[in-house]
Amino acid sequence: MSFNIILAGSRGKMGSEAVKMINKEPTFSLVACIDHKNGPSTTQEVQELAGKALPVYTDAGRCFQEVEADIFIDLTNPEAGYINTKSALTHGLRSVVGTSGFSNEEINELSNIAVEKATGCIIAPNFALGAVLMMQFSKMAAKYFPDVEIIEKHHDQKLDAPSGTAKKTVELIQETRKQKQQGHPDEVETVAGARGANMDGIPVHSMRLPGMVAHQEVIFGSKSQLLTIKHDSFHRESFMDGLKLAMNQVGQIEGLVYGLEHVMDV
Amino acid sequence: MSFNIILAGSRGKMGSEAVKMINKEPTFSLVACIDHKNGPSTTQEVQELAGKALPVYTDAGRCFQEVEADIFIDLTNPEAGYINTKSALTHGLRSVVGTSGFSNEEINELSNIAVEKATGCIIAPNFALGAVLMMQFSKMAAKYFPDVEIIEKHHDQKLDAPSGTAKKTVELIQETRKQKQQGHPDEVETVAGARGANMDGIPVHSMRLPGMVAHQEVIFGSKSQLLTIKHDSFHRESFMDGLKLAMNQVGQIEGLVYGLEHVMDV
Amino acid sequence: MSFNIILAGSRGKMGSEAVKMINKEPTFSLVACIDHKNGPSTTQEVQELAGKALPVYTDAGRCFQEVEADIFIDLTNPEAGYINTKSALTHGLRSVVGTSGFSNEEINELSNIAVEKATGCIIAPNFALGAVLMMQFSKMAAKYFPDVEIIEKHHDQKLDAPSGTAKKTVELIQETRKQKQQGHPDEVETVAGARGANMDGIPVHSMRLPGMVAHQEVIFGSKSQLLTIKHDSFHRESFMDGLKLAMNQVGQIEGLVYGLEHVMDV
Amino acid sequence: MSFNIILAGSRGKMGSEAVKMINKEPTFSLVACIDHKNGPSTTQEVQELAGKALPVYTDAGRCFQEVEADIFIDLTNPEAGYINTKSALTHGLRSVVGTSGFSNEEINELSNIAVEKATGCIIAPNFALGAVLMMQFSKMAAKYFPDVEIIEKHHDQKLDAPSGTAKKTVELIQETRKQKQQGHPDEVETVAGARGANMDGIPVHSMRLPGMVAHQEVIFGSKSQLLTIKHDSFHRESFMDGLKLAMNQVGQIEGLVYGLEHVMDV
Repeated sequence: MSFNIILAGSRGKMGSEAVKMINKEPTFSLVACIDHKNGPSTTQEVQELAGKALPVYTDAGRCFQEVEADIFIDLTNPEAGYINTKSALTHGLRSVVGTSGFSNEEINELSNIAVEKATGCIIAPNFALGAVLMMQFSKMAAKYFPDVEIIEKHHDQKLDAPSGTAKKTVELIQETRKQKQQGHPDEVETVAGARGANMDGIPVHSMRLPGMVAHQEVIFGSKSQLLTIKHDSFHRESFMDGLKLAMNQVGQIEGLVYGLEHVMDV
Repeated sequence: MSFNIILAGSRGKMGSEAVKMINKEPTFSLVACIDHKNGPSTTQEVQELAGKALPVYTDAGRCFQEVEADIFIDLTNPEAGYINTKSALTHGLRSVVGTSGFSNEEINELSNIAVEKATGCIIAPNFALGAVLMMQFSKMAAKYFPDVEIIEKHHDQKLDAPSGTAKKTVELIQETRKQKQQGHPDEVETVAGARGANMDGIPVHSMRLPGMVAHQEVIFGSKSQLLTIKHDSFHRESFMDGLKLAMNQVGQIEGLVYGLEHVMDV
Repeated sequence: MSFNIILAGSRGKMGSEAVKMINKEPTFSLVACIDHKNGPSTTQEVQELAGKALPVYTDAGRCFQEVEADIFIDLTNPEAGYINTKSALTHGLRSVVGTSGFSNEEINELSNIAVEKATGCIIAPNFALGAVLMMQFSKMAAKYFPDVEIIEKHHDQKLDAPSGTAKKTVELIQETRKQKQQGHPDEVETVAGARGANMDGIPVHSMRLPGMVAHQEVIFGSKSQLLTIKHDSFHRESFMDGLKLAMNQVGQIEGLVYGLEHVMDV
Repeated sequence: MSFNIILAGSRGKMGSEAVKMINKEPTFSLVACIDHKNGPSTTQEVQELAGKALPVYTDAGRCFQEVEADIFIDLTNPEAGYINTKSALTHGLRSVVGTSGFSNEEINELSNIAVEKATGCIIAPNFALGAVLMMQFSKMAAKYFPDVEIIEKHHDQKLDAPSGTAKKTVELIQETRKQKQQGHPDEVETVAGARGANMDGIPVHSMRLPGMVAHQEVIFGSKSQLLTIKHDSFHRESFMDGLKLAMNQVGQIEGLVYGLEHVMDV
């Protein structure tokens, strides 16, 4: 089985990794790109990455009409991504979208179109399989270990703390964790902030140092034992295994799936 | 709901922890002990731990006939444990057994008795919930990460390497891992042993140092990412949460369950 | 060479470990205890630990007059410790004191007495050799790595955060670290506390979970590299190697030394 | 103070990082390159990196005669490096050389020339400051912790195990460690290799997984405590801080220094 692919966002950081990955996989074939700001020079880079001449469209609708394909991949941004994906699904094209920025309303609308057109769509806020597993395992472990803290570590150019992944992990843990007051009731911070950010009762700590890339540890404690689930990501190349998985799964589903964990066997 | 409990092995290391735990839980009540070598002094220690006078039997059968109970716990050894548990199940008594030493034949026989008597039995080779979760998560992760190594760390008085937990983890990983040749095909050990014990293609490394207790890390790697699942156990007290779980679950099952993971929601 | 030892604080947690340690070492011999609240039962415990009958004094001065000894060890508290040590040094007795609670004034006074009496005194706020080395190495590394964060982890019964060891580590690092503003100047905490306690510009994070004992990591980062120095302490038994070292060194020094690092070769 | 620099090996992996680093530092100025195989295209890349036209010499001797410089840097290989450095020192040019491949004879000869010409030379087998500190701290810690194991982790394309850094670390530890038989005397490997490579009595374990780059942990254990010193290197960019340090120190020394630790304050 082999798949013809249309890619939006091919000049971006994630997109250019995707072009390389598709090019390496014998079952994937890139047949067109969508790039609403494409110019001759940037297109050339993509052509070089793909190792062949490719039509590059500024208009998504026209692309889907003119080019026969099996899968549409969107690695742009929430605004362009929503427009592109809506158009792809309306054309009955199976779609894989990498974003955490869609509103619930947008997701519902895309879901309705996918069902109506009897096609499939996977939206993944995170393509790193290891990060997805870390979050799922944390959710499972929290059933048995209500005492938990998170430490996430990123390079010192990151602006926000805690990270989005830490926040998402807290949300997932809260689905299964028995509510409890952690720590000693009389515990005192002699310097403010020592005990981290309190997120629904779970302390989250954010380190920022040069040399770090993107790391997170979820640590569960109970009497005389600790269970730690840790993920290290060193480069956006780490997202490609998850993208590949989504591309191979999107043919099997009908309707919209939000989150890679729902097409994984965990 | 409250449970009356008969305990075999109450003078042992695990057993004495169990007496303390049972004593603390308002829903558990220790009603008798089985101790085929008991003498007045040792019995006294157990009485003190339990905070009350307890009949101590040398003969398991007589104990099960004379004492009304809800759960039998065996924390002895494979030989005594087999005899005790067979007798308990024959009396229709729900049983929780902590051992990794039963043969398949013995397990089958106990299973048949449990089914016949419409009662339940849980045999757990490992009561540390964190260790059980580490192994289950490793099995799940191996579906997506075929490249994996294990490092286990124990105090320097441990005689065998690799540890039983490491061996069990390899077995579980092999159930889901796509067979592959790890490392570089031309890789060379310039000092023998550097690349660890090769267990079905998975390298296992054993550290032994004073100051260590019982620790294991399972590390999965793929392009630009690592997923690590780690368990630290500092004392046999860490087994008590799992024993409690088994005691609370053994009333819900019919027949024999081998391994705590089968009564957990993972 | 063998040493006769007088110990104050023999019934305390540290003291009882010290009795066991002294008893095991062939070159050490416990000859008397000072215990201003001793009663028959508690004294008996110490006798059992020491494996022999021992005079126990409530009055330190009388003890130093009546008992010939080589080393005095104080493992009591800052108040009793100051009185005992002053008396010991005045009697010309070499002293090893485990406390972080003396004032500068008290230290100066003890130092003057030690010099005057041509004897030696070692006061150690921390007897764990690994913790002392962690702090010294951190001080050395900070010369070359100005970007640093600390995470310390303790059991969830600890009341104060950050720990005393973390505070001491920050102090030592500041002695050598080139002042700099760490992290991104525009970095924002979307939940307060995420970036930890700011101690002189160094973020310190405190975890508190059951299962933890006493752990600290000092992490230094620079372009594409991280250097981590970590200490784990599982039991106060870990202080005994440092106490032994101090006992063996106190005969070599004249005057007062504050901190084990000054009698170590680092 | 500003330095004019001649660089050999500018087209190599380390060399091209060095060109970028020199270009960023206001006090460094690249004035010529030595490249015995240079051609127009490759030279162009270096010119671009350096942001200016540069003379590129195939002959080291001619370069040193024609170009006025303060420091010579060699990042080639042991053969070319030896010839280049000998020539540089003979011209009285202070030299920084990155290699672990020189023989003792070669080092002695270069040392003699440096002394004779009253100039300085630093040869560094490792420019990663964090790795150098890890090794020095390990040497210091081993005085107090004779029980130690090493685990080093690299990408799965590395051919040899254990790594050169692990071997070097063992050597340094042996200089201070009291000889002892680690582990239990009756310990048994049920699968060969579990206990790692035995290097002078110190077990060394080598992990190889995709996703890893270059990591090492040195773990010291004693009663109830562990001290861990860990270094992570994610990219050869991590060598630049050490190179810069050597360039700033080579003006202060007379004669030859082997190893960055000797110009560091540890």
